[in-house]
Amino acid sequence: MKRERRLDEKLPHYLEALRELVAVPTVSARNQSIPEGAETVAAIARRFGLQADLHYFDGVPYVIASHRAGEGRPALLFYNHFDVQPEDPLELWETPPFDMAEKDGKLYGRGVCDDKGHIIVRFAAYDLLAEELGEVPLNLLFLAEGEEEIGSPHIREFLREKADLLRAEGCIWESGGVTSRGRPELYMGMKGVMSLELLARGPKMDVHSSLGPIVPNPLWRLVDFLREIKDADDRIRIPDFYADVLPPDEKDIKALSEGLEEIEELKENLGLEAFLRGAEGLEAKRRLFFEPWVNINGIHGGYGGEGSKTVLPSEARAKLDIRLVPNQKPEVILEKLLYYRYKSGYSDIEIEVSGGVEGPAKTPIDDPFVRLVADSAEEVYGEKPLLIPIAAGSGPMAHFREILGVPIVGCGMGYPGSRIHSPNENVRIEDFKKAILHTARVIEKFASIS
Amino acid sequence: MKRERRLDEKLPHYLEALRELVAVPTVSARNQSIPEGAETVAAIARRFGLQADLHYFDGVPYVIASHRAGEGRPALLFYNHFDVQPEDPLELWETPPFDMAEKDGKLYGRGVCDDKGHIIVRFAAYDLLAEELGEVPLNLLFLAEGEEEIGSPHIREFLREKADLLRAEGCIWESGGVTSRGRPELYMGMKGVMSLELLARGPKMDVHSSLGPIVPNPLWRLVDFLREIKDADDRIRIPDFYADVLPPDEKDIKALSEGLEEIEELKENLGLEAFLRGAEGLEAKRRLFFEPWVNINGIHGGYGGEGSKTVLPSEARAKLDIRLVPNQKPEVILEKLLYYRYKSGYSDIEIEVSGGVEGPAKTPIDDPFVRLVADSAEEVYGEKPLLIPIAAGSGPMAHFREILGVPIVGCGMGYPGSRIHSPNENVRIEDFKKAILHTARVIEKFASIS
Repeated sequence: MKRERRLDEKLPHYLEALRELVAVPTVSARNQSIPEGAETVAAIARRFGLQADLHYFDGVPYVIASHRAGEGRPALLFYNHFDVQPEDPLELWETPPFDMAEKDGKLYGRGVCDDKGHIIVRFAAYDLLAEELGEVPLNLLFLAEGEEEIGSPHIREFLREKADLLRAEGCIWESGGVTSRGRPELYMGMKGVMSLELLARGPKMDVHSSLGPIVPNPLWRLVDFLREIKDADDRIRIPDFYADVLPPDEKDIKALSEGLEEIEELKENLGLEAFLRGAEGLEAKRRLFFEPWVNINGIHGGYGGEGSKTVLPSEARAKLDIRLVPNQKPEVILEKLLYYRYKSGYSDIEIEVSGGVEGPAKTPIDDPFVRLVADSAEEVYGEKPLLIPIAAGSGPMAHFREILGVPIVGCGMGYPGSRIHSPNENVRIEDFKKAILHTARVIEKFASIS
Repeated sequence: MKRERRLDEKLPHYLEALRELVAVPTVSARNQSIPEGAETVAAIARRFGLQADLHYFDGVPYVIASHRAGEGRPALLFYNHFDVQPEDPLELWETPPFDMAEKDGKLYGRGVCDDKGHIIVRFAAYDLLAEELGEVPLNLLFLAEGEEEIGSPHIREFLREKADLLRAEGCIWESGGVTSRGRPELYMGMKGVMSLELLARGPKMDVHSSLGPIVPNPLWRLVDFLREIKDADDRIRIPDFYADVLPPDEKDIKALSEGLEEIEELKENLGLEAFLRGAEGLEAKRRLFFEPWVNINGIHGGYGGEGSKTVLPSEARAKLDIRLVPNQKPEVILEKLLYYRYKSGYSDIEIEVSGGVEGPAKTPIDDPFVRLVADSAEEVYGEKPLLIPIAAGSGPMAHFREILGVPIVGCGMGYPGSRIHSPNENVRIEDFKKAILHTARVIEKFASIS
């Protein structure tokens, strides 16, 4: 019987497992239901014929599910997470976020795409293959954590402790998707990120703005310092900020040159007349994926209501995230920023790391494992995948690269309308099935060449 | 009987009138009780023996109370306002804001200082004199409006229409006060003000901050434009911004040179190590009173909650007020700013006038009327008043200067702890009495020399 047909037969079973997992409101930002989520993942894994254990590390549960083919066989590692983003604003959901709904060929619910759906995709791929082959001739390791959405604060130390157990020759990253044209996208790296909060202080209480010519205004102070960080031509001015930047190589550029219509579509979808600095096509992609950046997430200080108020506020805050590329290191960049703050005369502005810090990571685009995952995708999707050397987003990938030394490729079932992190998160059932078939093909191919 | 003793006898009567006026919650920002406030002012004026009429202009009530001494006699004009700032935050008031309370020699309530108390001060001065002299040999005009706290949007046109009726040879401005050492302060001018709102737009919805290298961030856009407006050395960069600035003359500088300890006290009270650009003493006063300035009242955009959020917001807003000095004109400065916005490439940033626009005003410090008010103050307070050529704050004074051509001096009963515009606004009863005696002496002196 063909694999596709068997998948159709087993699909209700897989969807039921996903529904069960979505129903556990594992919101890590609220530290909600994380142990229950881990238990549920392990229970589902066992039902799929895998061995599954909970590993508590510093009070935090990790699930490692596995299939053992034998000592001499290579291992394939899957990284996923069972925690989700908060569901608010709840009123914008058309169906209850933790009660998975099916409508018009789509599945709706918090985590159906990011990342519970992918946990089921990976398990289902094993399940299909195990039934087909009797025995999968490859060691498989499924690691799922419950802190990804809050920056994976413990995973580095956990990986260090479990490095022997998790040693693998290839790693499939948590998620991925297809373009608006249905072309699969694979990514081999991620940018690093570091979130900061800046606080500027002025007079000890809000005062009347007529005092402006002599009383330091924390909003002006923030503006002045931010303009020291980035100039009007959109170059970051922190000395040596770009020193460790690894530019894209020839193969990266070749990969970026494909699918340029996607980036133009993005511009249109965002209602933009032009990208920053007029970048287009390949240049826009190069900047998006290979340029480090300092982003302002928010500035808040002083009066923000209707009309005007002649106030000079006592303090003002800005939130930034710094996006890093290989081979920049978050701790080095932070040092450079703090030294620059001192040198440029802004030591009065307080800077605090306010979110998870993650380094950049990259698997060479010509790694054989990348080719294997790409070839599998072409076989399943019927067209060559788009290769993204470094994704614009961030995750704990660098720790896996550094500690396990494993090549990593991200792939999955998202699509441009998946609305991850937003109300009405959804996936298309066809993409769900394709992702299962792709994952199965990767396992099969990896077993055959090893 | 001495005037001071008669004042003590009549004081309960004056306080009762103030209590009655405070009880009307004339919050112009909410368009609340303004006609009722006007009626109350007129009724009190009549009880004090003045003639009083309401003049509705474009639906807005003005009160003109008057005493007529005869056609040939000169006239003294008093400008005041019966509207008040909103009382919030209500929970910080120790007594109900619209129920005047007396405690430890102080009066508490919204408007006891700004500016209802001064309305009663002016009326009481007339009342005292009328009783003492039988007939006050001077024309007196008491103009009170109900829109001062929202920028006096109608007063210019009202003054134009009533110019003949309001013609006077001297004008006492709404308020004033004494320093922390009890020395009276007189001011002969006010800065102009123009409140603006800036709006920068980015993508049509909030997006993930990983798009930062290519998607214009409205917060960066605002920061970039604001830094075009002011440089890091705190000079305003709008071309020709300073072109029409009238520097202080010798007499102004001499006046500023007195009472330097007050400005140092201010620094301490605000918890500042230094004023902006390290200005001290006379230089700090020169900047405060004679330098135009662009102030940021607020910036709001993007995420402002706990921790971090990797968002790139769709829009961001800044509120500014521009403080002007003679001979700058608000409409000219606005033109310069808009042209600069265009020339420097920021036409995408929307700029809107968001509050009342008021021009700067100044009566020469050596005007005989200034000397008269100063001499009267010295007689009543027992020491020479501090002369402030231009106050840092703003008001509709320029219209009076331009349309009525009258010399104007501000004086009154405030003190550094009066907390105008804030909860627990208060005045000291001793200052209330002194201000009445001073106003009476001004009337008396003006009548005698005219």
